[in-house]
Amino acid sequence: MSVTAPRGFAAAGVAAGLKSTGKPDVAVVVNRGPHKVGTAVFTSNRAKANPILWSQQAVADGVVEAVVLNSGGANCFTGTFGFQTTHQTAEKAGELLGVSPGDVLVCSTGLIGTGDEVFRTKVLDGTTAAIGSLSDDGGEDAARAIMTTDSRPKNAVVSRGGWTIGGMAKGAGMLAPGLATMLVVITTDAVLDRDAADAALRSATRTSFDRLDSDGCMSTNDQVTLMVSGASGVVPDTDEFADALAELCRDLAEQLQGDAEGASHDISIEVVGAASEDDAVVVGRSVARNNLFKAAIFGNDPNWGRVLAAIGTTDATFDPYDVDVSFNGVRVCSAGGPDRPREDVDLTPRATHILIDLKSGDAAATILTNDLTHEYVHENSAYSS
Amino acid sequence: MSVTAPRGFAAAGVAAGLKSTGKPDVAVVVNRGPHKVGTAVFTSNRAKANPILWSQQAVADGVVEAVVLNSGGANCFTGTFGFQTTHQTAEKAGELLGVSPGDVLVCSTGLIGTGDEVFRTKVLDGTTAAIGSLSDDGGEDAARAIMTTDSRPKNAVVSRGGWTIGGMAKGAGMLAPGLATMLVVITTDAVLDRDAADAALRSATRTSFDRLDSDGCMSTNDQVTLMVSGASGVVPDTDEFADALAELCRDLAEQLQGDAEGASHDISIEVVGAASEDDAVVVGRSVARNNLFKAAIFGNDPNWGRVLAAIGTTDATFDPYDVDVSFNGVRVCSAGGPDRPREDVDLTPRATHILIDLKSGDAAATILTNDLTHEYVHENSAYSS
Repeated sequence: MSVTAPRGFAAAGVAAGLKSTGKPDVAVVVNRGPHKVGTAVFTSNRAKANPILWSQQAVADGVVEAVVLNSGGANCFTGTFGFQTTHQTAEKAGELLGVSPGDVLVCSTGLIGTGDEVFRTKVLDGTTAAIGSLSDDGGEDAARAIMTTDSRPKNAVVSRGGWTIGGMAKGAGMLAPGLATMLVVITTDAVLDRDAADAALRSATRTSFDRLDSDGCMSTNDQVTLMVSGASGVVPDTDEFADALAELCRDLAEQLQGDAEGASHDISIEVVGAASEDDAVVVGRSVARNNLFKAAIFGNDPNWGRVLAAIGTTDATFDPYDVDVSFNGVRVCSAGGPDRPREDVDLTPRATHILIDLKSGDAAATILTNDLTHEYVHENSAYSS
Repeated sequence: MSVTAPRGFAAAGVAAGLKSTGKPDVAVVVNRGPHKVGTAVFTSNRAKANPILWSQQAVADGVVEAVVLNSGGANCFTGTFGFQTTHQTAEKAGELLGVSPGDVLVCSTGLIGTGDEVFRTKVLDGTTAAIGSLSDDGGEDAARAIMTTDSRPKNAVVSRGGWTIGGMAKGAGMLAPGLATMLVVITTDAVLDRDAADAALRSATRTSFDRLDSDGCMSTNDQVTLMVSGASGVVPDTDEFADALAELCRDLAEQLQGDAEGASHDISIEVVGAASEDDAVVVGRSVARNNLFKAAIFGNDPNWGRVLAAIGTTDATFDPYDVDVSFNGVRVCSAGGPDRPREDVDLTPRATHILIDLKSGDAAATILTNDLTHEYVHENSAYSS
């Protein structure tokens, strides 16, 4: 049921000809209220696409009426013309929905540099068609329309006492297929003000999407939007809502990881015994971004030396000669030296668990990543041509 | 002629059985004097191999009599036993050469975690055999004995008015085949004191090996050693020596780049118009480490969007919407927007030139890297198994 699972939302996904395959490529998600609260987090890349530049301004007042999303073109580095396309998209949606264009967010995904006159016409026509097709159960269609190299749509729903959160996602975090980005729209019928929604969203993304690091490449178009309709009439407990939202975001993040381009392993890098949570994240990320480690996992090789060499590049608190490393439950390195033989490790399952004990404190964090495969190289060398 | 091109040096390379192929795997380079000046730079990885821990101490007094190098095992994360192996290697060499063990540096390269009793015996026997085979023209043999996945030995010689610098190298910078590291030994018969040698070495490595970034993976065993015999009797002009040393280091760095594992393109990323040299390096390195950019080059795709997305992750001074990017002389992006069509770019030659103009100053730097290929994934997923 996706983004239309919570009460107060309608959605649609249509084919506007942006994708050469003729598949759906424009989606709209509308908040029918009664509340129109919205907040969003954006890529930290300084090279931001036009929809990011627009949406950052549009969301600032805490009111979001709708989100228009397109695949088939990132509208990034397309100049003033590209920004005007985004602006016109919001104006078109605002006019048809009878709301202020300044309360319409826009997201785009696809190849950077795509955003010419043909693109503009198709996006505007697609926006009109999608709004004409809005439906209370249109969430699944919307999720399909934002796919690029995704092999399947990603949806998630979490319900608690009387209220529901729904979400859809595309892409794979920082894997950024063709820099096509991660786009996420989350909806809820719980009653929340802007500050509570914003705090819950930032907290949830920090421990979910921000810990998914498929290939270390940061996108120009990443956007995660939360819209609050309040249609349930239920004011949730703040902590309970934050927990539920985090659960939904982790679910979507794991779906993104599981569909990462060309991957043959889904790798969870669990760092424990860290002096701080930041240290645990830094250490996990250094391993997740190490091509030699990632290629070793592709080869089913429990190469703990590459793990230690990766974490040695960080400034986290630990002694490299005191660290334990386990692969799928087998401790192959203890106190910075060989432990059980690598032959004892079975890396043939897709789910792969790396446990790193820094022996420096009580903090922990888990980073999700994928292996580096022939298919990854193939897809990313061929995507745009 | 390699490291034995300058007067006052002898070298050897022998097969000690560390490599299963039976190829040479232990090398020795000896300074016959009259001067015995030495200096070295080491990996900045906190996870340092035993030979690094030893050599950092041994070089501190500015006197180096010899360097013993082995391939076929990194002797990293091998505990106290591994450190003792390094120590015994220096003692064995010192005893046979009649010098202090504290003036013998040791370098190892190969798989992390390799350094058991069998390894120790072979390294010690190999050290004895190599010292027994020392020759005034043994440089080529030494260069072959330090190869791991290298397809060819790397040697370079530069001569100026009456003095000569020779060098040998293995590996490929931070490409770190199997974390097998870059090892470099440089010799000269110019007359230099320790401070002058040290300053020249640090300056030369900063603009050569430090700007080679094949895959962003930092090794545990990297070491670049300069030994000064003074046998020419000529005191060089300081600037002239620094220039010659930098030229030799760049030559070796380009040989390392040209032999990088699985690469099909040698990529020079030239960053100009930077506010500072540091900014230029940071920007160049961010592109060199971007897997999506590297995969695109493998696919002969001049994907400038991936360049801008990579540099957008840095905090260097520039406006992403003011940047020009050229591929092999064709400006495909100007002022952060599309310029000439990508079809105009020919990326079929191995030598690839990326020019990035930040329009923010007069500083510049060039980073050398390689593309991300099927062969890279294959070699690094299969190397240790």
